[in-house]
Amino acid sequence: MKPNALSALGRRTELPPISWLMQTALTRPKLISLAAGFTDNPTLPTEISRKLLNEILRSPKTGQPALQYGITVGEKNLRELTAKHLQKLDGGHDSGHSPEHVIITGGSQQLLYMTLEALCDEGDIILVEDPTYFVFLSILQSRGIKARGVKLEPDGIDLAHLGKVLTRLKKSGELRRVKALYLVTYFQNPTGATTSLAKKSATLKLLKKFERAAGHPIYLLEDAAYRELRFDHGDDIPTALILPGAKERVIYTGTYSKPYAPGARVGFGILPEPLFTTVQRIKGNHDFGTANLLQQLLAGALASGLYDKHVAKVRKNYARKARVMKSALAEHFPANVEIWESGGGLYFWARLPKGISAGVKSKVFQSALKADVLYVPGELCYADDPSRAKPDNEMRISFGSASVENIRKGIARLGKVLKKFI
Amino acid sequence: MKPNALSALGRRTELPPISWLMQTALTRPKLISLAAGFTDNPTLPTEISRKLLNEILRSPKTGQPALQYGITVGEKNLRELTAKHLQKLDGGHDSGHSPEHVIITGGSQQLLYMTLEALCDEGDIILVEDPTYFVFLSILQSRGIKARGVKLEPDGIDLAHLGKVLTRLKKSGELRRVKALYLVTYFQNPTGATTSLAKKSATLKLLKKFERAAGHPIYLLEDAAYRELRFDHGDDIPTALILPGAKERVIYTGTYSKPYAPGARVGFGILPEPLFTTVQRIKGNHDFGTANLLQQLLAGALASGLYDKHVAKVRKNYARKARVMKSALAEHFPANVEIWESGGGLYFWARLPKGISAGVKSKVFQSALKADVLYVPGELCYADDPSRAKPDNEMRISFGSASVENIRKGIARLGKVLKKFI
Repeated sequence: MKPNALSALGRRTELPPISWLMQTALTRPKLISLAAGFTDNPTLPTEISRKLLNEILRSPKTGQPALQYGITVGEKNLRELTAKHLQKLDGGHDSGHSPEHVIITGGSQQLLYMTLEALCDEGDIILVEDPTYFVFLSILQSRGIKARGVKLEPDGIDLAHLGKVLTRLKKSGELRRVKALYLVTYFQNPTGATTSLAKKSATLKLLKKFERAAGHPIYLLEDAAYRELRFDHGDDIPTALILPGAKERVIYTGTYSKPYAPGARVGFGILPEPLFTTVQRIKGNHDFGTANLLQQLLAGALASGLYDKHVAKVRKNYARKARVMKSALAEHFPANVEIWESGGGLYFWARLPKGISAGVKSKVFQSALKADVLYVPGELCYADDPSRAKPDNEMRISFGSASVENIRKGIARLGKVLKKFI
Repeated sequence: MKPNALSALGRRTELPPISWLMQTALTRPKLISLAAGFTDNPTLPTEISRKLLNEILRSPKTGQPALQYGITVGEKNLRELTAKHLQKLDGGHDSGHSPEHVIITGGSQQLLYMTLEALCDEGDIILVEDPTYFVFLSILQSRGIKARGVKLEPDGIDLAHLGKVLTRLKKSGELRRVKALYLVTYFQNPTGATTSLAKKSATLKLLKKFERAAGHPIYLLEDAAYRELRFDHGDDIPTALILPGAKERVIYTGTYSKPYAPGARVGFGILPEPLFTTVQRIKGNHDFGTANLLQQLLAGALASGLYDKHVAKVRKNYARKARVMKSALAEHFPANVEIWESGGGLYFWARLPKGISAGVKSKVFQSALKADVLYVPGELCYADDPSRAKPDNEMRISFGSASVENIRKGIARLGKVLKKFI
């Protein structure tokens, strides 16, 4: 008799590598974690949230619906405010931002999960940036979906390489298994890279060219989780949603977690039909709708303008922390470590000279742990793609949750470790 | 070229029948809905929640963690309080109620979903009560899992029939596909039936007998969503968790949604290994943990005793509404309609004389709609089981969200319709 009755998915689902990192962190109380993608604690909107929740719950007219069930797709006011919000981020462009196509979810993570459920069978292929968001890779692994990597440059994926990958998949007969290309388009996790609008446009066209051979649409899945965490107040790059043909091919996922509060987890997205309807039905089976109280909190923040004020404050704060980290990196890291600098988000990406491993089992990582500083080994962000090598000489370093003092200390410790090996 | 790239799951996932009912309801503003399983609006804990959230968010020490990410399995304090709470419900019994086995989820619905992900491949079989909770049937349908019905009596499933079903599946070679038996054990949705401890115990033993032939464990999945909505203050029936061998075989799902607030959606569960670990990993991929703000709200309510006070009030209120509905049913329904009365929960179950359909397309349902009253046709609560007939002469009638006045009016309207056809 088998000891358990687990499904193939159940047997396959691995412990996320990051959990192990977090567990390790907990055993060393003096450890400075530059690993977690947590947001900055002191700037979390405790006062704003208290005020808004007070208003919502004080009156039965708003309080009762906030504590009651709602509808699966999300509350009408929040969907409208979200559509307006996206339109504003896109400089007034209104194509594809209609509230009817907005779904509200438990963070954008849930939407990524459900989108993959709706799109992919076991053995299907999703193209990803090389490197990419590691929890997305965990979903693929768990669901038996293959990831194929596309080279990443500081302004987005390498289009020539994307063409090569698609051509190779066409030749091998695997193109019919390719369902989507996943891009983290703003201040990417883990590298901080941002995709230019020109690349988004060229990517959409390139994918389209291969659809005949695929026998079905190939979607562009745009994850904009870090979009609102840009440091400067210049113009935002519009989403792929505004491009011609996007309405049928672009899936957009966003979140209020990073800019507002992860503890009030609300995400959102826009999907083309029939994906929108399908994901909505799947959400009905998951939880028939994200908690109304959180939806009303976010709606209140958006409608009152407190959200915008808060985000402005948060951006300033992260910009400052990024500057602190930048100067600490310049001071403490060996000069031949390549640093990818970002215009927003929570991360720096560091590439050690070839041959120096920063992987989980490396001397660098172990020495860093002993020196009480933690980073995310870059190798965890690479897909299991037999056609691509997995570099192990990179690290993701976050300034999200560490204090300014700990950023300085942590980078100094890490620099000292690196200088021993480089 | 195929018009879309949906997965088998995506193509299979149907519009839940209940959505259609809800849509219909929205088009008739004067309609009295006795269909929805919504909770009572006026008793929702707006003031308690306002007070608790104020306390949590006023101090950065508690406010910041509540708005930050947490850990996937759930916050330590809420897991401890939940274990204690379950122990109390079980009359002090502490077997299997350890906080280490408690997982916190986005309602119990999410836990049901993830449990099925962890357990079932396409083509696997879950045994269900006949009738059962229809959203659970929707999950099975969407995931390509077969449901097989077991006859239900007012004190739980018909054990002789369960034996027959298992024997038949053994003979047909399908037993190796049977992963679990799903029971809604307290004030069941839709019938209001409650499973006795004797039946839980006999069920566990019976399942165990068939495990050798199945080649793997057959779990008892106990859904206790309505457990705390009992009308009287007598002793609660303990969960199957306290039975011998339960630690390896019983999956328990519960929720704070129904007794506290669906809009602050927090559910919980206890699972045997390796299911507990597997579901935790799956949750990492879904959303890496339920929103902390809601978890802290519930922890605050439980720790302060406000939760217990609130639940006592809610129970009194539902007991009163059930009495109102009972007397309205006695006054207005034809005498030959069989009524299942419940000791708790949100529903009455009515069985019309044989040959009189109450199904979605029936004259009764259409006339009820015209008379501006809505119920859930019982047929929606039956599994697609080729070996079982689907009765269409039943209705689920809820007193959950309707006011006392509307309960009286709605039942009068429904009675008038029934008298035309019976």
